Amino acid sequence: MMRIYVLLISLATLAIGLTIFVFVGDDKPIDEEAVDGVQAITLKNGMRVVVQENRRAPVVVTQIWYKVGGSYEHDGITGVSHVLEHMMFKGTEDYPAGKFSEIIAEHGGRENAFTSKDYTAYFQRISNEHLELCLSLEADRMRNLLLSDDEFIKEIEVVKEERRLRTDDKPTSLTYERFNAAAFANNPYRQPIIGWMEDLDTMTIDDLKEWYLTWYAPNNATLVVVGDVTAKEVFSLAKEYFGSLKPVELPQLKPRQEAKQYGIQRVEVKVPARVPFLVMGYKVPVLKSVDDKDEAYALELLNGLLDGGNSSRFSENLVRGSQIATSVSANYNLYALHDSLFTLSAIPANDVAIDKLKAAIIEQIEAIQDQPPTQAELERVKAQVVASSVYEQDSSFYQAMKIGILETVNLGWPAMNEYVDRINAVTAEQVRQVARKYFIEDHLTVAELIPQAINLQTPAAATVSAGGRHAQ
Amino acid sequence: MMRIYVLLISLATLAIGLTIFVFVGDDKPIDEEAVDGVQAITLKNGMRVVVQENRRAPVVVTQIWYKVGGSYEHDGITGVSHVLEHMMFKGTEDYPAGKFSEIIAEHGGRENAFTSKDYTAYFQRISNEHLELCLSLEADRMRNLLLSDDEFIKEIEVVKEERRLRTDDKPTSLTYERFNAAAFANNPYRQPIIGWMEDLDTMTIDDLKEWYLTWYAPNNATLVVVGDVTAKEVFSLAKEYFGSLKPVELPQLKPRQEAKQYGIQRVEVKVPARVPFLVMGYKVPVLKSVDDKDEAYALELLNGLLDGGNSSRFSENLVRGSQIATSVSANYNLYALHDSLFTLSAIPANDVAIDKLKAAIIEQIEAIQDQPPTQAELERVKAQVVASSVYEQDSSFYQAMKIGILETVNLGWPAMNEYVDRINAVTAEQVRQVARKYFIEDHLTVAELIPQAINLQTPAAATVSAGGRHAQ
Repeated sequence: MMRIYVLLISLATLAIGLTIFVFVGDDKPIDEEAVDGVQAITLKNGMRVVVQENRRAPVVVTQIWYKVGGSYEHDGITGVSHVLEHMMFKGTEDYPAGKFSEIIAEHGGRENAFTSKDYTAYFQRISNEHLELCLSLEADRMRNLLLSDDEFIKEIEVVKEERRLRTDDKPTSLTYERFNAAAFANNPYRQPIIGWMEDLDTMTIDDLKEWYLTWYAPNNATLVVVGDVTAKEVFSLAKEYFGSLKPVELPQLKPRQEAKQYGIQRVEVKVPARVPFLVMGYKVPVLKSVDDKDEAYALELLNGLLDGGNSSRFSENLVRGSQIATSVSANYNLYALHDSLFTLSAIPANDVAIDKLKAAIIEQIEAIQDQPPTQAELERVKAQVVASSVYEQDSSFYQAMKIGILETVNLGWPAMNEYVDRINAVTAEQVRQVARKYFIEDHLTVAELIPQAINLQTPAAATVSAGGRHAQ
Repeated sequence: MMRIYVLLISLATLAIGLTIFVFVGDDKPIDEEAVDGVQAITLKNGMRVVVQENRRAPVVVTQIWYKVGGSYEHDGITGVSHVLEHMMFKGTEDYPAGKFSEIIAEHGGRENAFTSKDYTAYFQRISNEHLELCLSLEADRMRNLLLSDDEFIKEIEVVKEERRLRTDDKPTSLTYERFNAAAFANNPYRQPIIGWMEDLDTMTIDDLKEWYLTWYAPNNATLVVVGDVTAKEVFSLAKEYFGSLKPVELPQLKPRQEAKQYGIQRVEVKVPARVPFLVMGYKVPVLKSVDDKDEAYALELLNGLLDGGNSSRFSENLVRGSQIATSVSANYNLYALHDSLFTLSAIPANDVAIDKLKAAIIEQIEAIQDQPPTQAELERVKAQVVASSVYEQDSSFYQAMKIGILETVNLGWPAMNEYVDRINAVTAEQVRQVARKYFIEDHLTVAELIPQAINLQTPAAATVSAGGRHAQ
């Protein structure tokens, strides 16, 4: 799911327009309440069910979201959420290993799963007549997973192979991994979602069992259904299949707030590669953690201003303009669970020194700190940011993802309705102010990929396991 | 116990000469077996008891060592071992808060405790007639600690104040803390023993209770007694007071092996200070982890060669010679539980740029990589390293510490008997080889303290709490 994740991160947000809604909060854990566009209930056992009806095609997307992922882990067991995601396809008493996927395929559906920092999710896209099938299968594996040691011993090798392929043998990913580890002292985003290889090497089936029993429960899950169904029907089926599952006592998560950073941090990654790569990141708050929500939306807009298509500043000034870089991108995750990084990553153009590239990027940062954007630029960027979020509405899958993310990071799905208004309300001066407040050198981390000669004698990586599902 | 810890680290080792011994291993967990000089038994509940008789004065040192410390912790609960050490003085049913210390003082004894990366230990030094008193008190608090929320709420503030005083307001400590955090990706030594302030802020009495119940048990403890007592008497008292305590099932510790480092890492610490400070560290194995033990002893000797008194290379070439530095020290912990760092830390002489100092230190490293030490230098360094370990034998307290450390990191106390022979067997070429193998730039981390103007208007730190006990 690499592609989906990346896309999501870069588009980052979505609004569903002017729907009027009644939000049934978690503290009213019983009744159904219909709302326009999106409807949600909380079952008695604490499970959330959110439905968006969409009659365009006789298809339904079902997603089960668990509040667990890389940022819930701690040193020593990194990667356990993602390994568990793999194991979720390895069978229950009623449906042995592989059966789940086989049944969905037989019914013409597609299914997969993804693990991220703040969530693990499972999805099917299938003809709407088979909704019940999906829910019955998901309910079964929510509490009845076998977690056999035999399956684990095979699957952990699949995951290690995935790590080799996607991180260890991929210089830009490796650089990004080490950048994150260097940037944070205490914040859980320092850990790779796929896990340190050293932790994968020593992971046991008992780690998986503990993780599963701790986090996979109705009161830690959200069912999101988008498509050609009625909310009433979904609620009824959800009660039938999930209603009898017992809630568990969830552990109190440690906040893992980041320790104050007192100066720039730098890390070099010297591995065989052809092209250099630069990642820079400033520590920033997110919508969930920020005191003044306007700041989070201003950072979101700033992200669009620097890196939002061909007329963005990075593209215009660094890629097409000065031709210093082959590519430069900015990244800000408005909906992260913890404080995060505003990252700037770039590949220098041929023969451009990495220091020159770094200086050019800093120059762009300083420009926005010196001078707020003009009204014309601001309006253009707003239009683009809003448009790309509106385009996402065209996909049932992304609609469901947006709802799932917001529920899972405890912002609640109605937060998506604020997006357009909040973005439109950001002023040019607010954009400058967040750049001044957060883009300071003492809170910066810089990672550089310094390519080493590639030894062509090295044997190619082992073939990819066909069964490999993937995180990130 | 800051002083004791630092001293220990820098002296690092101790040998007890040519005693002949019979080691009662952990896999023969029952009977007493007398050995010359040191005698040890393992009680039926798994508790180790090690005694060294020493009749010089009618005094006894008792120490209880627990296999738990900073390196046993994970993100989110950093500092919990040290907070628990504080709480160990806050009362049981039989001896309420403060009573333990009061009783020891009334009997003319001294007592305290220290928490380190790989252990937590409690000690008394008292007239030998009061040995029984100490053991009865220690046995009581091993399983009967009250851990009241009221005491915790007060004590956590004492610990936070300790952190402010010893880390946050002490630029060199802060630099060292951030150096460690930057150096390691996955190894638990990246975490501060005192804990991140953010974790102390969110610690609860439940965290303490869990930690205490998990690790404070006879099968995770070693009693070390050195002084004017008979081993027979100690063994008998140990059985009487600790023999009835139930063992617990200890968790399997994750190895937390460090992820491979691919390039130099640098961190700047910019805080108000008067004097710059530089810390550099190379990743190295320790006696416990190394494949070839000779390498660990060669690193130990190299440590003495670079930084062992006035005729060491650092002193001769960088401090007295070129006068580039006010001080330069090397540090290697032979007896650490996990892979560690060989650190080089230095304060530049007035007006010497930190880059010049760094280059001069690297030059010293390169010199030893190019050219093995002469036989004369090697013999001189060996004599010094051995002598400083022999001097430690003069102190009952250090004897007990050496035994406690070796037992607690699972090397076993007899390892101390190898020390002198192993050091004497190191060759000049081995010293050069470990310098070549481990002192490579891609495995280096560098931290620099860059002093900022001191604002004299800042109010002084709050007064130290009188009750403050301390870690590290």
